[in-house]
Amino acid sequence: MHRTKVKVVEDALDANTTIAQANRDDFDRNAVAVVNLMSAPGAGKTTLLEAVFEIGLGDVRPGVLEGDVQGSLDADRLGAFHVPVIQVNTDGGFGGECHLDANMVRSALPELPLGDIDLLIVENVGNLVCPAEFRVGEDVKAMICSVTEGEDKPLKYPLMFRTCELVVVNKIDLLPHLDYDMDKLITNIRSVNPEAEVMQVSARTGEGVEQFRHWLLHAAEREPAPA
Amino acid sequence: MHRTKVKVVEDALDANTTIAQANRDDFDRNAVAVVNLMSAPGAGKTTLLEAVFEIGLGDVRPGVLEGDVQGSLDADRLGAFHVPVIQVNTDGGFGGECHLDANMVRSALPELPLGDIDLLIVENVGNLVCPAEFRVGEDVKAMICSVTEGEDKPLKYPLMFRTCELVVVNKIDLLPHLDYDMDKLITNIRSVNPEAEVMQVSARTGEGVEQFRHWLLHAAEREPAPA
Repeated sequence: MHRTKVKVVEDALDANTTIAQANRDDFDRNAVAVVNLMSAPGAGKTTLLEAVFEIGLGDVRPGVLEGDVQGSLDADRLGAFHVPVIQVNTDGGFGGECHLDANMVRSALPELPLGDIDLLIVENVGNLVCPAEFRVGEDVKAMICSVTEGEDKPLKYPLMFRTCELVVVNKIDLLPHLDYDMDKLITNIRSVNPEAEVMQVSARTGEGVEQFRHWLLHAAEREPAPA
Repeated sequence: MHRTKVKVVEDALDANTTIAQANRDDFDRNAVAVVNLMSAPGAGKTTLLEAVFEIGLGDVRPGVLEGDVQGSLDADRLGAFHVPVIQVNTDGGFGGECHLDANMVRSALPELPLGDIDLLIVENVGNLVCPAEFRVGEDVKAMICSVTEGEDKPLKYPLMFRTCELVVVNKIDLLPHLDYDMDKLITNIRSVNPEAEVMQVSARTGEGVEQFRHWLLHAAEREPAPA
């Protein structure tokens, strides 16, 4: 009897990874750098992007993919800066998804003018857990951590802090009114991610925004990830 | 031929609902009222409970079930008040679960002295999406919303605000330092949940804490839910 040899695919990708790679290929073909920007609800992702777009990014043409459970409040705010913005709502089912995944981003790609932008900022759903678990085809992950959230968050949500190359510590204008120990926060970040770049900003007053703007410009110049 | 008639169970419960009901039965047998307390990361759940335990709950004997992705920082803080506290970590797999479900709570029940407490406060994982989707056997859901998160959160996370009977607006001591419109927040809450009770507190200064303490005492006196 002739037996067929069963082939075993050792590195079968999960669906999210497969789709993230397809997104990545589309981004590379269009020379678009992609930043996945994450934070807890209300940490200031949109306000920080508003502060950057107010200054502008020079020759770098940005676009934004907004992830929210429901509504388009943030997309409307950013659209005022004449930046291409596409809203993805995760509220397909009961309660909605708490994160963007590669397939949600992929479903939005036809609406994005990839040929006309150089830098795509994916503003993820406000959540410190699941967004860090789903690659969407980004070059780099960054997060915002507000000083009003306390210094303990890196220890309570370690994956989020571990997967990000950049931690933006926002709302530093409120420091005089809080019992906050910045050294403790930085020690906690270092304990889960010794390599992360940390910058302190106030999206509201503009302090430190230039530093984040430079980081975005640098991100836009990255060599595309190998296919 | 004799055919067996196939019975169709119309109202088959999902596993979470079944287990939540089993939790509920255990709570009722022990006359324990249960509050599921939720919020975004860093909104002040633990600090508010510390403020309440500092005053005490009179004859009502509280217990706490702490939900966190990792660590026991909050449980350690509350344990200092000689209240029974059990920590549930959701970090079983990659990244951890972003919410407590009925089965996680059930796994902790043997460690809880249900016969020695009257009020169990379940401090959920910091997240405004998924915790609202999973009943754990509670009598009532409550949430904390910090003024530093902005006024738009009810519109962006409607299920969370809709499922809660109480919205505690925390960190009002920071209002003089923020551009915050409390009327706008309340309008937004009302638009998704006209019935919710709203109270303004500062867990840090103690302002309004007495009101939340009274609410907890009232919650402890509820008639048990019908079996």
